[in-house]
Amino acid sequence: MAPVKVFGPAMSTNVARVLVCLEEVGADYDVVSMDFQAKEHKSPEHLARNPFGQIPAFQDGDVVLFESRAICKYVLRKYKSAEADLLREGDLKDAAVVDVWTEVEAHTYHPAISPIVYECFINPTFRGIPTNEKVVEEALEKLKKVLDVYEARLADREYLAGDFFSFADVNHFPYTFAFMATPHASLFDSYPNVKAWWERLMARPSMSKLGANIAAAIKA
Amino acid sequence: MAPVKVFGPAMSTNVARVLVCLEEVGADYDVVSMDFQAKEHKSPEHLARNPFGQIPAFQDGDVVLFESRAICKYVLRKYKSAEADLLREGDLKDAAVVDVWTEVEAHTYHPAISPIVYECFINPTFRGIPTNEKVVEEALEKLKKVLDVYEARLADREYLAGDFFSFADVNHFPYTFAFMATPHASLFDSYPNVKAWWERLMARPSMSKLGANIAAAIKA
Repeated sequence: MAPVKVFGPAMSTNVARVLVCLEEVGADYDVVSMDFQAKEHKSPEHLARNPFGQIPAFQDGDVVLFESRAICKYVLRKYKSAEADLLREGDLKDAAVVDVWTEVEAHTYHPAISPIVYECFINPTFRGIPTNEKVVEEALEKLKKVLDVYEARLADREYLAGDFFSFADVNHFPYTFAFMATPHASLFDSYPNVKAWWERLMARPSMSKLGANIAAAIKA
Repeated sequence: MAPVKVFGPAMSTNVARVLVCLEEVGADYDVVSMDFQAKEHKSPEHLARNPFGQIPAFQDGDVVLFESRAICKYVLRKYKSAEADLLREGDLKDAAVVDVWTEVEAHTYHPAISPIVYECFINPTFRGIPTNEKVVEEALEKLKKVLDVYEARLADREYLAGDFFSFADVNHFPYTFAFMATPHASLFDSYPNVKAWWERLMARPSMSKLGANIAAAIKA
Protein backbone atom coordinates (compact mmCIF):
# COMPACT_ATOMS: atom_id res chain seq x y z
CA MET A 1 0.00 0.00 0.00
CA ALA A 2 1.46 3.38 -1.01
CA PRO A 3 2.13 5.69 1.94
CA VAL A 4 -0.40 8.47 2.49
CA LYS A 5 0.83 11.99 1.74
CA VAL A 6 0.76 15.04 3.99
CA PHE A 7 1.37 18.38 2.25
CA GLY A 8 3.05 21.14 4.24
CA PRO A 9 6.18 21.73 6.30
CA ALA A 10 6.36 19.13 9.11
CA MET A 11 7.17 21.80 11.68
CA SER A 12 3.91 23.72 11.11
CA THR A 13 1.57 23.34 14.09
CA ASN A 14 -1.42 22.18 12.06
CA VAL A 15 0.69 19.73 10.07
CA ALA A 16 2.17 18.37 13.33
CA ARG A 17 -1.39 17.68 14.52
CA VAL A 18 -1.82 15.26 11.59
CA LEU A 19 1.65 13.72 11.90
CA VAL A 20 1.20 12.90 15.57
CA CYS A 21 -1.99 10.97 14.70
CA LEU A 22 -0.17 9.09 11.91
CA GLU A 23 2.59 8.18 14.39
CA GLU A 24 0.08 7.08 17.01
CA VAL A 25 -1.56 4.60 14.64
CA GLY A 26 1.74 3.52 13.06
CA ALA A 27 0.74 4.51 9.51
CA ASP A 28 3.23 4.81 6.67
CA TYR A 29 3.36 8.41 5.42
CA ASP A 30 5.35 10.87 3.35
CA VAL A 31 5.56 14.58 4.06
CA VAL A 32 5.52 16.60 0.83
CA SER A 33 7.15 19.95 1.55
CA MET A 34 5.74 23.03 -0.13
CA ASP A 35 7.70 26.09 -1.21
CA PHE A 36 5.89 28.99 0.47
CA GLN A 37 8.33 31.54 -1.00
CA ALA A 38 7.34 30.36 -4.48
CA LYS A 39 3.65 30.49 -3.38
CA GLU A 40 3.28 26.80 -4.12
CA HIS A 41 0.38 26.70 -1.63
CA LYS A 42 -1.56 29.03 -3.97
CA SER A 43 -0.81 26.94 -7.10
CA PRO A 44 -3.69 25.30 -9.01
CA GLU A 45 -2.39 21.87 -7.90
CA HIS A 46 -2.64 22.81 -4.26
CA LEU A 47 -5.90 24.74 -4.59
CA ALA A 48 -7.39 21.52 -5.98
CA ARG A 49 -6.41 19.90 -2.66
CA ASN A 50 -7.46 22.84 -0.47
CA PRO A 51 -9.50 25.62 -2.10
CA PHE A 52 -8.45 28.00 0.70
CA GLY A 53 -4.76 27.53 -0.24
CA GLN A 54 -3.65 26.49 3.22
CA ILE A 55 -1.76 23.61 4.77
CA PRO A 56 -1.97 20.81 5.65
CA ALA A 57 -3.61 18.89 2.86
CA PHE A 58 -3.71 15.12 2.72
CA GLN A 59 -3.93 12.44 0.09
CA ASP A 60 -4.72 8.75 0.37
CA GLY A 61 -5.29 7.45 -3.17
CA ASP A 62 -8.41 9.21 -4.42
CA VAL A 63 -9.25 10.65 -1.00
CA VAL A 64 -8.00 14.24 -0.83
CA LEU A 65 -8.68 16.19 2.35
CA PHE A 66 -7.82 19.39 4.20
CA GLU A 67 -8.50 20.87 7.68
CA SER A 68 -6.11 19.25 10.15
CA ARG A 69 -8.74 18.04 12.63
CA ALA A 70 -10.76 16.41 9.84
CA ILE A 71 -7.65 14.71 8.43
CA CYS A 72 -6.80 13.42 11.92
CA LYS A 73 -10.22 11.84 12.29
CA TYR A 74 -9.90 10.12 8.92
CA VAL A 75 -6.49 8.74 9.91
CA LEU A 76 -7.70 7.61 13.35
CA ARG A 77 -10.73 5.85 11.82
CA LYS A 78 -8.85 4.22 8.95
CA TYR A 79 -6.02 2.80 11.06
CA LYS A 80 -8.08 2.13 14.21
CA SER A 81 -6.97 -0.96 16.17
CA ALA A 82 -7.51 -2.41 19.64
CA GLU A 83 -4.32 -0.59 20.72
CA ALA A 84 -5.07 2.69 18.94
CA ASP A 85 -8.74 3.66 19.19
CA LEU A 86 -8.42 7.37 19.83
CA LEU A 87 -11.95 8.41 18.82
CA ARG A 88 -13.86 5.62 20.66
CA GLU A 89 -16.70 5.89 18.17
CA GLY A 90 -17.85 2.39 19.09
CA ASP A 91 -19.05 3.76 22.43
CA LEU A 92 -21.64 6.55 22.32
CA LYS A 93 -20.68 8.09 25.67
CA ASP A 94 -16.89 7.79 25.35
CA ALA A 95 -17.02 9.27 21.83
CA ALA A 96 -19.06 12.20 23.13
CA VAL A 97 -16.60 13.00 25.91
CA VAL A 98 -13.70 12.79 23.43
CA ASP A 99 -15.63 15.20 21.18
CA VAL A 100 -16.36 17.62 24.04
CA TRP A 101 -12.67 18.02 24.97
CA THR A 102 -11.63 18.07 21.31
CA GLU A 103 -14.01 21.02 20.81
CA VAL A 104 -12.75 22.66 24.02
CA GLU A 105 -9.27 22.62 22.47
CA ALA A 106 -10.56 24.25 19.29
CA HIS A 107 -12.81 26.91 20.81
CA THR A 108 -11.34 27.65 24.26
CA TYR A 109 -7.75 26.39 24.70
CA HIS A 110 -6.49 27.28 21.23
CA PRO A 111 -7.78 30.90 21.21
CA ALA A 112 -6.04 31.44 24.57
CA ILE A 113 -2.68 29.78 23.88
CA SER A 114 -2.17 30.52 20.16
CA PRO A 115 -1.66 34.32 20.47
CA ILE A 116 1.20 33.62 22.91
CA VAL A 117 2.73 31.12 20.48
CA TYR A 118 2.48 33.62 17.61
CA GLU A 119 3.68 36.66 19.56
CA CYS A 120 6.51 35.01 21.53
CA PHE A 121 7.72 32.34 19.12
CA ILE A 122 6.47 32.30 15.52
CA ASN A 123 6.53 36.07 14.85
CA PRO A 124 9.97 36.88 16.33
CA THR A 125 11.65 33.61 15.21
CA PHE A 126 10.39 33.25 11.63
CA ARG A 127 8.84 36.55 10.61
CA GLY A 128 11.07 39.20 12.16
CA ILE A 129 8.01 40.70 13.89
CA PRO A 130 8.57 41.87 17.48
CA THR A 131 6.36 40.54 20.30
CA ASN A 132 3.27 42.58 21.17
CA GLU A 133 3.37 42.32 24.96
CA LYS A 134 -0.18 43.64 25.41
CA VAL A 135 -1.58 40.80 23.31
CA VAL A 136 0.53 38.32 25.28
CA GLU A 137 -0.68 39.65 28.64
CA GLU A 138 -4.34 39.42 27.66
CA ALA A 139 -3.86 35.92 26.30
CA LEU A 140 -2.03 34.81 29.46
CA GLU A 141 -4.95 35.95 31.61
CA LYS A 142 -7.32 34.01 29.37
CA LEU A 143 -5.06 30.95 29.40
CA LYS A 144 -4.85 30.94 33.22
CA LYS A 145 -8.64 30.71 33.46
CA VAL A 146 -8.64 27.84 30.98
CA LEU A 147 -5.86 26.04 32.86
CA ASP A 148 -7.85 26.41 36.12
CA VAL A 149 -10.57 24.30 34.53
CA TYR A 150 -8.06 21.79 33.11
CA GLU A 151 -6.36 21.50 36.51
CA ALA A 152 -9.67 20.52 38.15
CA ARG A 153 -10.55 18.23 35.25
CA LEU A 154 -7.23 16.37 35.51
CA ALA A 155 -7.38 16.05 39.32
CA ASP A 156 -8.99 12.64 39.21
CA ARG A 157 -8.31 11.36 35.70
CA GLU A 158 -5.14 10.79 33.68
CA TYR A 159 -6.43 12.19 30.41
CA LEU A 160 -8.97 14.79 29.36
CA ALA A 161 -11.72 12.37 28.30
CA GLY A 162 -11.17 9.98 31.22
CA ASP A 163 -8.71 7.25 32.08
CA PHE A 164 -7.95 6.61 28.42
CA PHE A 165 -5.67 8.52 26.04
CA SER A 166 -7.66 9.98 23.13
CA PHE A 167 -7.72 12.43 20.26
CA ALA A 168 -8.79 15.10 22.77
CA ASP A 169 -5.29 14.90 24.28
CA VAL A 170 -3.40 14.55 20.97
CA ASN A 171 -5.14 17.63 19.67
CA HIS A 172 -3.38 19.75 22.32
CA PHE A 173 0.11 18.70 21.19
CA PRO A 174 1.09 21.24 18.50
CA TYR A 175 0.34 24.51 20.29
CA THR A 176 1.33 23.30 23.75
CA PHE A 177 4.65 22.06 22.35
CA ALA A 178 5.25 25.46 20.72
CA PHE A 179 4.17 27.26 23.92
CA MET A 180 6.95 25.40 25.75
CA ALA A 181 9.43 27.21 23.49
CA THR A 182 8.21 30.62 24.73
CA PRO A 183 9.44 32.49 27.84
CA HIS A 184 6.07 31.66 29.48
CA ALA A 185 6.54 27.88 29.59
CA SER A 186 6.94 27.95 33.37
CA LEU A 187 3.27 28.96 33.71
CA PHE A 188 2.50 25.22 33.66
CA ASP A 189 4.45 24.80 36.93
CA SER A 190 1.50 26.42 38.74
CA TYR A 191 -0.80 23.67 37.45
CA PRO A 192 0.68 20.36 38.68
CA ASN A 193 -2.08 18.15 37.26
CA VAL A 194 -1.83 19.82 33.86
CA LYS A 195 1.95 19.58 33.97
CA ALA A 196 1.84 15.87 34.83
CA TRP A 197 -0.63 15.31 31.98
CA TRP A 198 1.65 17.14 29.55
CA GLU A 199 4.67 15.09 30.68
CA ARG A 200 2.58 11.94 30.23
CA LEU A 201 1.86 13.01 26.62
CA MET A 202 5.47 13.97 25.88
CA ALA A 203 6.62 10.55 27.11
CA ARG A 204 4.72 8.91 24.25
CA PRO A 205 6.97 7.82 21.34
CA SER A 206 4.78 9.75 18.85
CA MET A 207 5.15 13.10 20.58
CA SER A 208 8.74 12.77 21.70
CA LYS A 209 9.74 11.84 18.11
CA LEU A 210 7.81 14.72 16.54
CA GLY A 211 8.96 17.12 19.22
CA ALA A 212 12.60 16.21 18.48
CA ASN A 213 12.02 16.59 14.71
CA ILE A 214 10.43 20.02 15.15
CA ALA A 215 13.22 21.18 17.47
CA ALA A 216 15.84 20.02 14.93
CA ALA A 217 14.01 21.75 12.06
CA ILE A 218 13.92 25.03 14.00
CA LYS A 219 17.68 24.89 14.68
CA ALA A 220 18.43 24.16 11.00
CA MET B 1 -37.95 7.46 27.43
CA ALA B 2 -37.55 10.84 29.17
CA PRO B 3 -36.84 13.69 26.76
CA VAL B 4 -33.25 14.91 26.61
CA LYS B 5 -32.58 18.36 28.06
CA VAL B 6 -30.88 21.31 26.44
CA PHE B 7 -29.82 24.11 28.80
CA GLY B 8 -29.79 27.66 27.46
CA PRO B 9 -32.07 30.11 25.71
CA ALA B 10 -33.40 28.54 22.48
CA MET B 11 -32.63 31.70 20.50
CA SER B 12 -28.89 31.57 21.25
CA THR B 13 -26.90 30.65 18.16
CA ASN B 14 -25.00 27.79 19.76
CA VAL B 15 -28.15 26.39 21.36
CA ALA B 16 -29.94 26.60 17.99
CA ARG B 17 -27.15 24.46 16.49
CA VAL B 18 -28.14 21.66 18.89
CA LEU B 19 -31.89 22.14 18.47
CA VAL B 20 -31.73 21.92 14.70
CA CYS B 21 -30.00 18.53 15.03
CA LEU B 22 -32.64 17.33 17.50
CA GLU B 23 -35.35 18.41 15.05
CA GLU B 24 -33.59 16.72 12.13
CA VAL B 25 -33.56 13.34 13.90
CA GLY B 26 -37.02 13.78 15.43
CA ALA B 27 -35.83 13.47 19.04
CA ASP B 28 -38.00 14.41 22.00
CA TYR B 29 -36.37 17.28 23.93
CA ASP B 30 -36.96 19.98 26.52
CA VAL B 31 -35.24 23.34 26.53
CA VAL B 32 -34.37 24.43 30.08
CA SER B 33 -34.05 28.21 30.07
CA MET B 34 -31.37 29.78 32.22
CA ASP B 35 -31.58 33.14 33.95
CA PHE B 36 -28.49 35.00 32.77
CA GLN B 37 -29.38 38.11 34.80
CA ALA B 38 -29.30 35.95 37.95
CA LYS B 39 -26.01 34.43 36.71
CA GLU B 40 -27.56 30.98 36.72
CA HIS B 41 -24.99 29.91 34.11
CA LYS B 42 -22.27 30.47 36.75
CA SER B 43 -24.11 28.49 39.47
CA PRO B 44 -22.55 25.30 40.89
CA GLU B 45 -25.34 23.26 39.22
CA HIS B 46 -24.47 24.62 35.81
CA LEU B 47 -20.69 24.55 36.33
CA ALA B 48 -21.10 20.83 37.02
CA ARG B 49 -22.58 20.58 33.51
CA ASN B 50 -20.10 22.94 31.86
CA PRO B 51 -17.02 23.96 33.87
CA PHE B 52 -16.59 27.03 31.64
CA GLY B 53 -20.07 28.30 32.66
CA GLN B 54 -21.37 28.63 29.12
CA ILE B 55 -24.36 27.44 27.16
CA PRO B 56 -25.53 25.14 25.75
CA ALA B 57 -25.23 22.17 28.06
CA PHE B 58 -27.03 18.91 27.46
CA GLN B 59 -28.32 16.02 29.53
CA ASP B 60 -29.47 12.57 28.50
CA GLY B 61 -29.81 10.52 31.70
CA ASP B 62 -26.29 10.22 33.11
CA VAL B 63 -24.68 11.66 29.98
CA VAL B 64 -23.94 15.35 30.55
CA LEU B 65 -22.22 17.25 27.76
CA PHE B 66 -21.27 20.73 26.60
CA GLU B 67 -19.77 22.30 23.44
CA SER B 68 -22.51 22.60 20.84
CA ARG B 69 -20.72 20.74 18.04
CA ALA B 70 -19.92 17.81 20.36
CA ILE B 71 -23.54 17.67 21.58
CA CYS B 72 -24.75 17.67 17.97
CA LYS B 73 -22.57 14.69 17.11
CA TYR B 74 -23.87 12.75 20.12
CA VAL B 75 -27.46 13.49 19.06
CA LEU B 76 -26.81 12.57 15.42
CA ARG B 77 -25.15 9.29 16.43
CA LYS B 78 -27.73 8.31 19.03
CA TYR B 79 -30.77 8.91 16.82
CA LYS B 80 -29.17 7.92 13.51
CA SER B 81 -31.55 6.25 11.06
CA ALA B 82 -31.64 5.40 7.38
CA GLU B 83 -33.46 8.72 6.81
CA ALA B 84 -31.25 10.78 9.12
CA ASP B 85 -27.58 9.84 8.88
CA LEU B 86 -25.97 13.24 8.98
CA LEU B 87 -22.45 12.17 9.97
CA ARG B 88 -22.11 9.20 7.55
CA GLU B 89 -19.64 7.54 9.89
CA GLY B 90 -20.36 4.17 8.26
CA ASP B 91 -18.45 5.36 5.19
CA LEU B 92 -14.83 6.41 5.70
CA LYS B 93 -14.71 8.81 2.75
CA ASP B 94 -18.15 10.40 3.20
CA ALA B 95 -17.48 10.92 6.93
CA ALA B 96 -14.18 12.62 6.10
CA VAL B 97 -15.77 15.06 3.64
CA VAL B 98 -18.51 15.86 6.19
CA ASP B 99 -15.75 16.51 8.76
CA VAL B 100 -13.76 18.73 6.38
CA TRP B 101 -16.70 21.07 5.75
CA THR B 102 -17.76 20.97 9.38
CA GLU B 103 -14.26 22.16 10.30
CA VAL B 104 -14.36 24.79 7.54
CA GLU B 105 -17.46 26.21 9.23
CA ALA B 106 -15.69 26.34 12.60
CA HIS B 107 -12.35 27.75 11.49
CA THR B 108 -13.05 29.76 8.33
CA TYR B 109 -16.77 30.57 7.83
CA HIS B 110 -17.59 31.30 11.47
CA PRO B 111 -14.66 33.70 12.11
CA ALA B 112 -15.72 35.67 9.01
CA ILE B 113 -19.49 35.82 9.56
CA SER B 114 -19.75 36.00 13.36
CA PRO B 115 -18.27 39.52 13.80
CA ILE B 116 -20.97 40.81 11.44
CA VAL B 117 -23.67 39.02 13.43
CA TYR B 118 -22.35 40.47 16.70
CA GLU B 119 -21.77 43.99 15.42
CA CYS B 120 -24.92 44.40 13.34
CA PHE B 121 -27.43 42.28 15.24
CA ILE B 122 -26.55 40.94 18.71
CA ASN B 123 -24.76 44.03 20.09
CA PRO B 124 -27.24 46.71 18.96
CA THR B 125 -30.39 44.58 19.53
CA PHE B 126 -29.65 42.97 22.90
CA ARG B 127 -26.71 44.79 24.45
CA GLY B 128 -27.24 48.44 23.54
CA ILE B 129 -23.76 48.52 21.97
CA PRO B 130 -23.48 50.47 18.70
CA THR B 131 -22.10 48.76 15.58
CA ASN B 132 -18.36 49.11 14.95
CA GLU B 133 -18.40 49.66 11.19
CA LYS B 134 -14.65 49.08 10.80
CA VAL B 135 -14.96 45.58 12.27
CA VAL B 136 -17.92 44.91 9.97
CA GLU B 137 -16.05 46.08 6.86
CA GLU B 138 -13.06 43.87 7.58
CA ALA B 139 -15.29 40.87 8.29
CA LEU B 140 -17.27 41.46 5.07
CA GLU B 141 -14.05 41.38 3.02
CA LYS B 142 -13.11 38.12 4.73
CA LEU B 143 -16.59 36.66 4.23
CA LYS B 144 -16.57 37.49 0.50
CA LYS B 145 -13.41 35.45 0.02
CA VAL B 146 -14.95 32.54 1.91
CA LEU B 147 -18.15 32.78 -0.15
CA ASP B 148 -16.10 32.72 -3.37
CA VAL B 149 -14.88 29.26 -2.35
CA TYR B 150 -18.38 28.13 -1.30
CA GLU B 151 -19.82 29.39 -4.60
CA ALA B 152 -17.36 27.20 -6.56
CA ARG B 153 -17.90 24.27 -4.19
CA LEU B 154 -21.68 24.41 -4.64
CA ALA B 155 -21.52 24.80 -8.44
CA ASP B 156 -21.84 21.09 -9.07
CA ARG B 157 -23.24 19.68 -5.83
CA GLU B 158 -26.37 20.40 -3.79
CA TYR B 159 -24.73 20.32 -0.38
CA LEU B 160 -21.27 21.04 1.01
CA ALA B 161 -20.18 17.42 1.43
CA GLY B 162 -21.70 16.22 -1.84
CA ASP B 163 -25.14 15.32 -3.07
CA PHE B 164 -26.30 14.48 0.42
CA PHE B 165 -27.44 16.76 3.24
CA SER B 166 -25.15 16.45 6.27
CA PHE B 167 -24.02 17.95 9.54
CA ALA B 168 -21.63 20.13 7.54
CA ASP B 169 -24.67 22.01 6.20
CA VAL B 170 -26.65 22.03 9.48
CA ASN B 171 -23.67 23.53 11.25
CA HIS B 172 -24.01 26.69 9.14
CA PHE B 173 -27.59 27.35 10.22
CA PRO B 174 -27.29 29.48 13.40
CA TYR B 175 -24.92 32.20 12.24
CA THR B 176 -26.20 32.33 8.66
CA PHE B 177 -29.77 32.68 9.97
CA ALA B 178 -28.67 35.55 12.25
CA PHE B 179 -26.67 37.12 9.40
CA MET B 180 -29.91 37.29 7.39
CA ALA B 181 -31.27 39.65 10.07
CA THR B 182 -28.43 42.14 9.44
CA PRO B 183 -28.40 44.93 6.81
CA HIS B 184 -25.83 42.86 4.88
CA ALA B 185 -28.13 39.92 4.07
CA SER B 186 -28.25 40.91 0.39
CA LEU B 187 -24.55 39.96 0.06
CA PHE B 188 -25.76 36.42 -0.64
CA ASP B 189 -27.48 37.67 -3.84
CA SER B 190 -24.03 37.89 -5.45
CA TYR B 191 -23.49 34.17 -4.81
CA PRO B 192 -26.35 32.35 -6.59
CA ASN B 193 -25.15 28.83 -5.74
CA VAL B 194 -24.71 29.72 -2.08
CA LYS B 195 -28.09 31.43 -2.04
CA ALA B 196 -29.82 28.40 -3.59
CA TRP B 197 -28.09 26.15 -1.02
CA TRP B 198 -29.28 28.39 1.82
CA GLU B 199 -32.85 28.36 0.48
CA ARG B 200 -32.65 24.58 0.22
CA LEU B 201 -31.67 24.45 3.91
CA MET B 202 -34.35 26.91 5.02
CA ALA B 203 -37.00 24.84 3.21
CA ARG B 204 -36.32 21.96 5.62
CA PRO B 205 -38.96 21.61 8.37
CA SER B 206 -36.23 21.69 11.08
CA MET B 207 -34.76 25.01 10.03
CA SER B 208 -37.99 26.75 9.05
CA LYS B 209 -39.50 25.78 12.45
CA LEU B 210 -36.48 26.95 14.44
CA GLY B 211 -36.13 30.06 12.33
CA ALA B 212 -39.76 30.98 13.07
CA ASN B 213 -39.26 30.30 16.80
CA ILE B 214 -36.15 32.48 16.95
CA ALA B 215 -37.86 35.30 15.03
CA ALA B 216 -40.83 35.15 17.43
CA ALA B 217 -38.52 35.17 20.49
CA ILE B 218 -36.68 38.24 19.19
CA LYS B 219 -39.97 40.14 18.69
CA ALA B 220 -41.16 39.23 22.22
